[in-house]
Amino acid sequence: MALKEVRIERDSLGEMEVPREAYYGAQTARAIRNFPYGGPRFPRPFIRALGLLKRAAAEVNMELGLLDPRRGQAIVEAAQEVADGRFDDQFVVEIFQTGSGTSTNMNANEVIANRATELLGGERGSKLVHPNDHVNLGQSSNDVIPTAIHLTILMLLGEELLPALAELQDTLHRKAEEFMPIIKTGRTHLMDATPIRLGQEFMGYAGQVERAQRRLRTVAEDLREVPLGGTAVGTGTNTHPEFARRVCARIESLTGIPLRETENHFQGQSSLDALVFASGALKAYATGLMKIANDIRWMGSGPRAGLGELVLPAVQPGSSIMPGKVNPVIPESVLQICAQVLGNDLVVAIGNQWGNFELNTMMPVIAHNLIQSIQLLAGASRNFARQCIAGLVATERGPALVEQGLMLATALVPVVGYDAASRIAQEAYRTGKTVRQVAREQLNFTEEELERILDPVRMTEPGFSAGPGGG
Amino acid sequence: MALKEVRIERDSLGEMEVPREAYYGAQTARAIRNFPYGGPRFPRPFIRALGLLKRAAAEVNMELGLLDPRRGQAIVEAAQEVADGRFDDQFVVEIFQTGSGTSTNMNANEVIANRATELLGGERGSKLVHPNDHVNLGQSSNDVIPTAIHLTILMLLGEELLPALAELQDTLHRKAEEFMPIIKTGRTHLMDATPIRLGQEFMGYAGQVERAQRRLRTVAEDLREVPLGGTAVGTGTNTHPEFARRVCARIESLTGIPLRETENHFQGQSSLDALVFASGALKAYATGLMKIANDIRWMGSGPRAGLGELVLPAVQPGSSIMPGKVNPVIPESVLQICAQVLGNDLVVAIGNQWGNFELNTMMPVIAHNLIQSIQLLAGASRNFARQCIAGLVATERGPALVEQGLMLATALVPVVGYDAASRIAQEAYRTGKTVRQVAREQLNFTEEELERILDPVRMTEPGFSAGPGGG
Amino acid sequence: MALKEVRIERDSLGEMEVPREAYYGAQTARAIRNFPYGGPRFPRPFIRALGLLKRAAAEVNMELGLLDPRRGQAIVEAAQEVADGRFDDQFVVEIFQTGSGTSTNMNANEVIANRATELLGGERGSKLVHPNDHVNLGQSSNDVIPTAIHLTILMLLGEELLPALAELQDTLHRKAEEFMPIIKTGRTHLMDATPIRLGQEFMGYAGQVERAQRRLRTVAEDLREVPLGGTAVGTGTNTHPEFARRVCARIESLTGIPLRETENHFQGQSSLDALVFASGALKAYATGLMKIANDIRWMGSGPRAGLGELVLPAVQPGSSIMPGKVNPVIPESVLQICAQVLGNDLVVAIGNQWGNFELNTMMPVIAHNLIQSIQLLAGASRNFARQCIAGLVATERGPALVEQGLMLATALVPVVGYDAASRIAQEAYRTGKTVRQVAREQLNFTEEELERILDPVRMTEPGFSAGPGGG
Amino acid sequence: MALKEVRIERDSLGEMEVPREAYYGAQTARAIRNFPYGGPRFPRPFIRALGLLKRAAAEVNMELGLLDPRRGQAIVEAAQEVADGRFDDQFVVEIFQTGSGTSTNMNANEVIANRATELLGGERGSKLVHPNDHVNLGQSSNDVIPTAIHLTILMLLGEELLPALAELQDTLHRKAEEFMPIIKTGRTHLMDATPIRLGQEFMGYAGQVERAQRRLRTVAEDLREVPLGGTAVGTGTNTHPEFARRVCARIESLTGIPLRETENHFQGQSSLDALVFASGALKAYATGLMKIANDIRWMGSGPRAGLGELVLPAVQPGSSIMPGKVNPVIPESVLQICAQVLGNDLVVAIGNQWGNFELNTMMPVIAHNLIQSIQLLAGASRNFARQCIAGLVATERGPALVEQGLMLATALVPVVGYDAASRIAQEAYRTGKTVRQVAREQLNFTEEELERILDPVRMTEPGFSAGPGGG
Repeated sequence: MALKEVRIERDSLGEMEVPREAYYGAQTARAIRNFPYGGPRFPRPFIRALGLLKRAAAEVNMELGLLDPRRGQAIVEAAQEVADGRFDDQFVVEIFQTGSGTSTNMNANEVIANRATELLGGERGSKLVHPNDHVNLGQSSNDVIPTAIHLTILMLLGEELLPALAELQDTLHRKAEEFMPIIKTGRTHLMDATPIRLGQEFMGYAGQVERAQRRLRTVAEDLREVPLGGTAVGTGTNTHPEFARRVCARIESLTGIPLRETENHFQGQSSLDALVFASGALKAYATGLMKIANDIRWMGSGPRAGLGELVLPAVQPGSSIMPGKVNPVIPESVLQICAQVLGNDLVVAIGNQWGNFELNTMMPVIAHNLIQSIQLLAGASRNFARQCIAGLVATERGPALVEQGLMLATALVPVVGYDAASRIAQEAYRTGKTVRQVAREQLNFTEEELERILDPVRMTEPGFSAGPGGG
Repeated sequence: MALKEVRIERDSLGEMEVPREAYYGAQTARAIRNFPYGGPRFPRPFIRALGLLKRAAAEVNMELGLLDPRRGQAIVEAAQEVADGRFDDQFVVEIFQTGSGTSTNMNANEVIANRATELLGGERGSKLVHPNDHVNLGQSSNDVIPTAIHLTILMLLGEELLPALAELQDTLHRKAEEFMPIIKTGRTHLMDATPIRLGQEFMGYAGQVERAQRRLRTVAEDLREVPLGGTAVGTGTNTHPEFARRVCARIESLTGIPLRETENHFQGQSSLDALVFASGALKAYATGLMKIANDIRWMGSGPRAGLGELVLPAVQPGSSIMPGKVNPVIPESVLQICAQVLGNDLVVAIGNQWGNFELNTMMPVIAHNLIQSIQLLAGASRNFARQCIAGLVATERGPALVEQGLMLATALVPVVGYDAASRIAQEAYRTGKTVRQVAREQLNFTEEELERILDPVRMTEPGFSAGPGGG
Repeated sequence: MALKEVRIERDSLGEMEVPREAYYGAQTARAIRNFPYGGPRFPRPFIRALGLLKRAAAEVNMELGLLDPRRGQAIVEAAQEVADGRFDDQFVVEIFQTGSGTSTNMNANEVIANRATELLGGERGSKLVHPNDHVNLGQSSNDVIPTAIHLTILMLLGEELLPALAELQDTLHRKAEEFMPIIKTGRTHLMDATPIRLGQEFMGYAGQVERAQRRLRTVAEDLREVPLGGTAVGTGTNTHPEFARRVCARIESLTGIPLRETENHFQGQSSLDALVFASGALKAYATGLMKIANDIRWMGSGPRAGLGELVLPAVQPGSSIMPGKVNPVIPESVLQICAQVLGNDLVVAIGNQWGNFELNTMMPVIAHNLIQSIQLLAGASRNFARQCIAGLVATERGPALVEQGLMLATALVPVVGYDAASRIAQEAYRTGKTVRQVAREQLNFTEEELERILDPVRMTEPGFSAGPGGG
Repeated sequence: MALKEVRIERDSLGEMEVPREAYYGAQTARAIRNFPYGGPRFPRPFIRALGLLKRAAAEVNMELGLLDPRRGQAIVEAAQEVADGRFDDQFVVEIFQTGSGTSTNMNANEVIANRATELLGGERGSKLVHPNDHVNLGQSSNDVIPTAIHLTILMLLGEELLPALAELQDTLHRKAEEFMPIIKTGRTHLMDATPIRLGQEFMGYAGQVERAQRRLRTVAEDLREVPLGGTAVGTGTNTHPEFARRVCARIESLTGIPLRETENHFQGQSSLDALVFASGALKAYATGLMKIANDIRWMGSGPRAGLGELVLPAVQPGSSIMPGKVNPVIPESVLQICAQVLGNDLVVAIGNQWGNFELNTMMPVIAHNLIQSIQLLAGASRNFARQCIAGLVATERGPALVEQGLMLATALVPVVGYDAASRIAQEAYRTGKTVRQVAREQLNFTEEELERILDPVRMTEPGFSAGPGGG
């Protein structure tokens, strides 16, 4: 690098070269050198949250008389630009960095300080606006980073994941209504069971997604409590006692998301239990979604040698060697995303083991995995709804097999008892006949009575096909 | 086995030998043969829940006129005996069995049927009271087993885990008060940070345990919704539409635990998302508890070459080779339990992937892991509180090192700025002096001012030691 | 407990009551009180390994002149009795105990010491043979316990798991031969693909199990290196430099299992990397076994509305509500076992994180999970082979659908190209015709040529049905 | 997009717009639309492996007379360009795609076909060289993708991970030699134990890394077996029987990596057991590395209130609020990477559950996680060696505390027995004296004898400080 292209900055470890046009400073430059893994970086939503937090902090510090209005206004403006994504290319530190996320906090402080300095007519690197003394005033990475993680997740839940789940639930619900007239053979243990409506199955799926939203809203409630205000070790040293409460209020007015300062800062920055709990809710949804996606690809299996009850939208040719093949690629991509979410959840849990004393030092990797899980699940839910569920078509095959179902014999149980009904089902299996045929042969029912008892429609509803003791 | 010692029972697959004195019947005997793994069985709390459920079912079936009172009363009595643990030795089927838990449901049905038969003066195996037609009336394993899992967990949460957490929180809280006067060096990244009170650290721990309880209560709320009433595939075939609602009400009157029949049975028995969510809350607590246990053993490390801030109760000699050694064995057992809970949580999540269509077929292994996690965490929390936390004694070492702490320099930041304060801390480090000494040498403060600024007591509270701009 | 029923023993923490008839002593009694979780204990195979190790240690200590022959012989005899299981009821300490397993090492030392004392005519508790000075001579829990874990696993691999896998492989292989003539529709993405022989699928399964054995043998090789000889911290203090090498040789002569003392003791007892690697091999097998079990239950699905290509042995009635239902309960139990193995593997990995300095303190929980995984996988493999695989019967359905398969069109690709073949497959799909019918209509092939090209038998072998450019 | 900027391509699903300048074609364009998750893509090493494989395939197909030399040569050239990274920007499909990786295989086929067409003077999209008929000749995604995964991993192991581990081992080994004279207090259960040399601890770390390499080489051996040649379902339909063997040989000559065609194709593409095993070896290393990184940051803890035995290189200012603080940020980044590897390992294992019949459909997510783990572990190992281990400096503190160590009493055990030695250690603890002082007071040893017995140097070696019975 030619001499002209760098500027020299100083931090407490000495001089450091920084690219001349960079908004970040010496500490960020050190972090680039220290963490050369080629891994992922903090994503946009996190930088947005961090920017908003820095803006609110400056506003409150001015309000409390701790920050002069000239510098303060410049910080507010610069921080908002960071929140808006204008300096995303300046956020160059990898996820795999110091466990407190200090490098990213300093990256933000430096970018905002230099941009604010610039807005005030100063020179980058001059520290006219100081990254620590002014931008980070009243804050520590140890309370800022976990607070920013909470805020990021809350924004992503509200703006991305919950709407995506609502869309998926709605799509499933519409399909449930469309498919409600279709009666098919239910399956338990993969084996033919009593009849069910295809629409009832989709009602079940919709119900899963509905409950997932309920759980995520619970989690969101839990995440509103933030550690801001604890500064270095949770005691709140070097911050104004009013600082965090006021910053929370400002963030709410900026984003509509209510945050509240924890009344127990010591738990708030040394442990991330709330994030493990949040991740568990994502995992619960992911495993539920796997079940849905798997069911649907199985119902679409075939077309000739599979279950063949559904046709999935053909979105791409399926095979490089088998011509004309169409595969359930959307469900497969959903399943893979869910598998990733399970792995991510483990990282979050492992990360939370590694707190010691006043600080958890796995914050960046926890943030990365949680944020990725939310974004991927939002994408999966939306895409699954739009490119797969919405276009599902039911075939004739499900209804065509109902009368063949041996478990119609279940409707005989209230009339002839479990043991006798078993013998009829087994005879039907052995002979290839239907339950109706065997029942007709072996029981003294009129055709009308049999019709009433062995009624697949009635079997899709609570109650006894023929009333217990009936027949 | 001599011929006289068995009786012959029939089920739909034919004849089966059953030990003559056994209360269980043919299907249980088959399950014993089918699942010979030597693994764990369903534990007492689950059998209790299953017994209560069977009792309530018989009461409701009588009430609805579906079960004759003579048989019904006998079932009620027999089921209560099962709930009370009188027949635990008859519950012989392993966890690793059919994925619906049908073998255990039938085990219960058979034991109750034979015991009820006996109460009515009949002979075991005679099916005077029939396991399917009478005991299982209006039920299917597919709705009974997941409902029994929910009920078991709710009972264990209310009777075991939440009280254990309350005890741990209380013990931590009392220690927090006891330790509040003790000021020590805080630690972030394991490195000396600004001062903190030992009591504040314990307040943090107590806060973690408090929040864990809150999350578990949320989970309990979620688990009150049960799939009972769906029978085989969620449609409710072969049960009375009123059955499940009434059984829930009876169980509430028997146990004090409110249950409610789900309004969406299809999600209820094909997916166990609620259990994954519940397990996530256990995991969140477990990882938090690991942090606490780890902190405490580290604070007790030494006695000569460790941190040595706490003395843990000496509960056993520590080493088979090193005489006089005492180790933090209680925290170690807690840590191992928490590790097990993380593994168990994974099993629950993996299990929930394996639902297909109308049924999840990993129910027993999911139940086993969840129940074990709850029981172990309850035991760990109680034992940790009683045999470790309650007896902790603080040493002189923590307070003795505070004045040595380089991060006292943090209190200089509001007065001289971050960069100057850094230089003072570094000089102290290099020379082995205290921050106070270097500050005295380099800054123009009176001794009184220095006293006011570098006040460790003030640094354990929000605000600025000297007020910003002060000094 | 009445006064007469206890004896008083002393250890370094003072007096302790011990049941008068117990072979264990004060330290074990303390451990019972300290770890009251109601959790699992060390299983038989581990106690066997520990007994053998203690026997070999006494023999070597005598040989080296460090232990007098009278006490030594008594220890040898007592330790062998422990190995033989005669005192299993005296091993009362739970898994969740001190992280080094010291409590169980001392339990063994105490039982052996008291039994040896008894054999020499002394009184229990008299320490005529001393648990530390004689039985534990030259050892520390820190090298004994991990060595015993390795030995346990090696014995279980050789005696249980590898033979069970060999049996499963053999059973699968015989089925592969039996099913080799049966041609069916292959499936990729669950969708119909080119034909395959049912026997080829089973050959694939057999191949998986074969490779699993190869990997487990690799792991066994890795585990032969043991930390014995490092004593307290890996330096080997208080043991004879020849001790460990000679004990390894004796154990080999007792068990046929070659062990070798590590040349790097410091890695050997502070980290259990080898056990994580071993667990990974178990997990690899478990996930592979899940695939096999799942395939087989899917092929057996139906009988009317499923794939219906196989009939699984009917081992028990399937449903408490649906009469005559038969479910794939053996594969389901196998799947649950595999899920447990995945959870157990996580515990092992988490455990290995928690080593500090000279010792890992998660040894008992790691041992428990690994041993359980091996035992369960051995049981699952054997039971799956015997009660499921061996009895599988192929139906007509697989072969009956081959001619319907759209992917027969793949055989047209070398002749007409991928794009044209696609159009033919799609036309067949749209019209419900077979590929042969459409090809007959659209291509200028003689019936003979079509026969040669669209030959399912040829498609189950490498090469081109008609030769590229043929036809 | 303006009309002029796209071209229209056709595939079996109809017309599709493709950016006019794109080398990829219709199927890739569909995949972009189908998988809009914003997630990661296949990384460089995978595309390199895929390019090499396509090149070798074309060479072999020419050799076998199945591909005309003109097209063949163009494919060879284009594929090599892909391998060289010239078209990385054309590989636009996300990881979360079809489970077979068909979209990425077709992406490669299309890019190579269009580039080869261009090299022959044709027009992109003209299919002069056809992606399926020519580039993919004799291949299926189902055998190509898993083979490419194996090849990628083998290249990364050989070129990245194993060299990084060798470097780390070497660095640790050099530090072990440097630190061998330094005697410090050993620690078990975090508590002071018998003395150890700091160099011995580093020898242990080096030993862990050495064994990790051995395990990875075992894994590499396992991965040389590849499924290429099985084509669609493992039968090898539409490929020449010689194809795969020859391609493997060519790849070996191109890369130096020996591959061999599996003799059991059915296991090879339906299950990825070998990849789970490989991931297990990575996990074993990761957990071991966590232990090392954690030890080192603990030894560096302080500087005043921690263990303070090491000083880590100061690579960046540690805190945004605490001036002059330096944190162990390199070990923290390593720990976070290892946590990620554990999560990734879980994804691999979960993925392998989801094979059905002839294909695993989690291949892309499995590949992604494995490759990321290898790359991150390589980076972590290198960076840890260079920026942390190499610069470690030992302080005076470790040696200074040795004489204080209570576990020097262990050296008394062979002389006075465990019980008496315990009493001495306890007395020393109670009184604050050293073991030597108490021994001097209570035992009848000359100062010379005490010197010989209580010799920390001797205690860092196997054997008895004073010989058993000595003194």
